Amino acid sequence: MPETLVFYTNPLSRSSIVHWMLEEVGADYRMEVLEFGDAMKSPAYLAINPMGKVPAIRHGDTVVTEAAAICAYLADAFPEAGLAPAPAERGEYYRWLFFAAGPLEAAVSLKGCGFQPTPEQERMLGFGRLEQVLETLEGAVDGKEYIAGNRFSAADVYVASHLSWGMQFGTIEKRPAFEAYCRGLETRTASRRVREHVEREMAAKGWSPD
Amino acid sequence: MPETLVFYTNPLSRSSIVHWMLEEVGADYRMEVLEFGDAMKSPAYLAINPMGKVPAIRHGDTVVTEAAAICAYLADAFPEAGLAPAPAERGEYYRWLFFAAGPLEAAVSLKGCGFQPTPEQERMLGFGRLEQVLETLEGAVDGKEYIAGNRFSAADVYVASHLSWGMQFGTIEKRPAFEAYCRGLETRTASRRVREHVEREMAAKGWSPD
Repeated sequence: MPETLVFYTNPLSRSSIVHWMLEEVGADYRMEVLEFGDAMKSPAYLAINPMGKVPAIRHGDTVVTEAAAICAYLADAFPEAGLAPAPAERGEYYRWLFFAAGPLEAAVSLKGCGFQPTPEQERMLGFGRLEQVLETLEGAVDGKEYIAGNRFSAADVYVASHLSWGMQFGTIEKRPAFEAYCRGLETRTASRRVREHVEREMAAKGWSPD
Repeated sequence: MPETLVFYTNPLSRSSIVHWMLEEVGADYRMEVLEFGDAMKSPAYLAINPMGKVPAIRHGDTVVTEAAAICAYLADAFPEAGLAPAPAERGEYYRWLFFAAGPLEAAVSLKGCGFQPTPEQERMLGFGRLEQVLETLEGAVDGKEYIAGNRFSAADVYVASHLSWGMQFGTIEKRPAFEAYCRGLETRTASRRVREHVEREMAAKGWSPD
């Protein structure tokens, strides 16, 4: 009997990255929507994620938090979907998963909250300047359909989600290489299904990305 | 014939995380030491890592950057060392690797550079408050020998390196659970060998952690 998979989510959060991944692996999952605020800080949910944030999943007895970790976990737990390279060939795969979860996420978040590091502070921040982070990532996706090897993988789900979200909300500048890379991936059925879900949820709350 | 493995490093950087991992997997590697500043910004090195920072590795034709990505890659590329769980059992393994590479690294770096986010900014920073990050990590290592399952893994190399380094340099407060967890891992031969190497290098430059 397959193990129960519970997806703790809020459609207006980074949870949509995991949602896309769940649709890609074809997992049978149950969605548990948590509102921001009290629901995410309840003792029941803090037992799942002491950080009090979504996304998280519980798969049988295994709890996984951090969107990138969940993507990597699902790719391995559902090998029939073919979303992770063979173990010996994961150099680029891990490189860009961790690059997006580390330097990209941090540099974009800092910009989002209006913090402008001085050159001295930049040297102390392992992730450096947003400009340099974006240059590096542009080099990785420029003219490519997929970021790791020649196959679609969990790294594409994670990186493209970050780029799409950032370009939509103005925290990542629109660059032709980013747009072309994301456009190619957004045609996937799983991606489209999640985007439509998020748009319905935003419309229901009267929110607009524009 | 085994592929050449080059380790781009500076002993006074996060490179020691990767150094420990290389010693654990028993890889045959060549060390290329880069000084901070011009050497890391040379066109030759920027072709390896456009971020202009160490650590990085080149293993045959595969380049990997980001310390956590390198740990995960080496665990998979040298399966005989047994430093990654079986693919279907990597929930905790990925969770704590990405937690340390994301929230922990970002929150500690921000503290290191003296940035104190307001409550409003904290909500925008996906990684939240350092205090909460440390609480969460404390729950993960408290009373445990290893952070993922019951076996030593690349996640221990990465997480324990962060904790040791942070406690040594005062960016992470000393908590008994962190000290006990690190103490257990520091007895490993590979860890001791790297620590002695770093201490020699620091002494040669007249630096002291105190």
